[in-house]
Amino acid sequence: MKMLENRIIAEGRVLGEDILKVDSFLNHQIDPVLMQAIGREIARLFDHDRIDKIVTVETSGIAPAVFAAAELGVPVVFAKKKAAITMTDENYVADVYSFTKKETNHIIIDKKFLNAAERILLVDDFLANGQAVNGLLEITDAAGANVVGAAVVIEKAFQPGHEILEQRGIRLESLAKISDFKDGQVVFAK
Amino acid sequence: MKMLENRIIAEGRVLGEDILKVDSFLNHQIDPVLMQAIGREIARLFDHDRIDKIVTVETSGIAPAVFAAAELGVPVVFAKKKAAITMTDENYVADVYSFTKKETNHIIIDKKFLNAAERILLVDDFLANGQAVNGLLEITDAAGANVVGAAVVIEKAFQPGHEILEQRGIRLESLAKISDFKDGQVVFAK
Repeated sequence: MKMLENRIIAEGRVLGEDILKVDSFLNHQIDPVLMQAIGREIARLFDHDRIDKIVTVETSGIAPAVFAAAELGVPVVFAKKKAAITMTDENYVADVYSFTKKETNHIIIDKKFLNAAERILLVDDFLANGQAVNGLLEITDAAGANVVGAAVVIEKAFQPGHEILEQRGIRLESLAKISDFKDGQVVFAK
Repeated sequence: MKMLENRIIAEGRVLGEDILKVDSFLNHQIDPVLMQAIGREIARLFDHDRIDKIVTVETSGIAPAVFAAAELGVPVVFAKKKAAITMTDENYVADVYSFTKKETNHIIIDKKFLNAAERILLVDDFLANGQAVNGLLEITDAAGANVVGAAVVIEKAFQPGHEILEQRGIRLESLAKISDFKDGQVVFAK
């Protein structure tokens, strides 16, 4: 998505080996016009997949998820992050390790918001090491739901997250796909 | 907003003296069609106020905020919640006490996303005791920004949050205004 790539080039900041900071339009300040365009593109890509529900993780997945969901006319469920959680019969829980923050969090979804055989589209801001996707798949598996695709705003394709989806045969659509950071600059995949 | 009131009546659950749970369309599962209608109504209400930016708090304020912002064509900045925070020169920080969770969190906004004299609209999911609004005002005051209004999806008018805005002469628009909980039922203000 050219409009997104241009914003990443103009405003993204590469930190160290593998961090891309895009807090001016995605992770702290949000550009709703760009997010709406992203939501429309996600909806277009999965228009024929009979999606029942979008599942994301708080916080930065919510904006692209709700715009895509508004286009598709389906609800969004966002997994909540908790530092500590008491397992109950009412919740699905999975562990998610954050390489950026070097800590394990739990993500949690109330069982009443996921149903067996529902056709789920996962949406998130970043796909990097795939920890969030892994946690979401653990939860959707526990619910017996059917993940038919994943859409991410930015994929760092040099990290292994995409392999988790490939191994499961889940279609991945990345609106911007970064193959490398070279001399502090973003290189997009062809 | 009748559409919102009807959803609160159909799906909201009153817990104890002062909690309203609306996790089927606002706080865990999100109905994007309803959120888009809410965003449009907020934009309509503040259409003539020359809003420069919407400020909200993660997580549940983000969906109504981004839809309102898309209509108004302005960015959203969401304050991040942190259990513990090291003050730096780069951030505005305020304390927010949660009566529901009985804990104090910090909210934080990067200084580069708030500018002096900017015309700010605050958006949030709930207005109850006003702790979040108070924290956001502390931050916008520190930035020298000008809060010209506040829009909340649901106001519990029997709690004191609205007084904080009244005392400062800040216009408040509540899309659903609850005057009371009576026998476990929601009573809307006339």
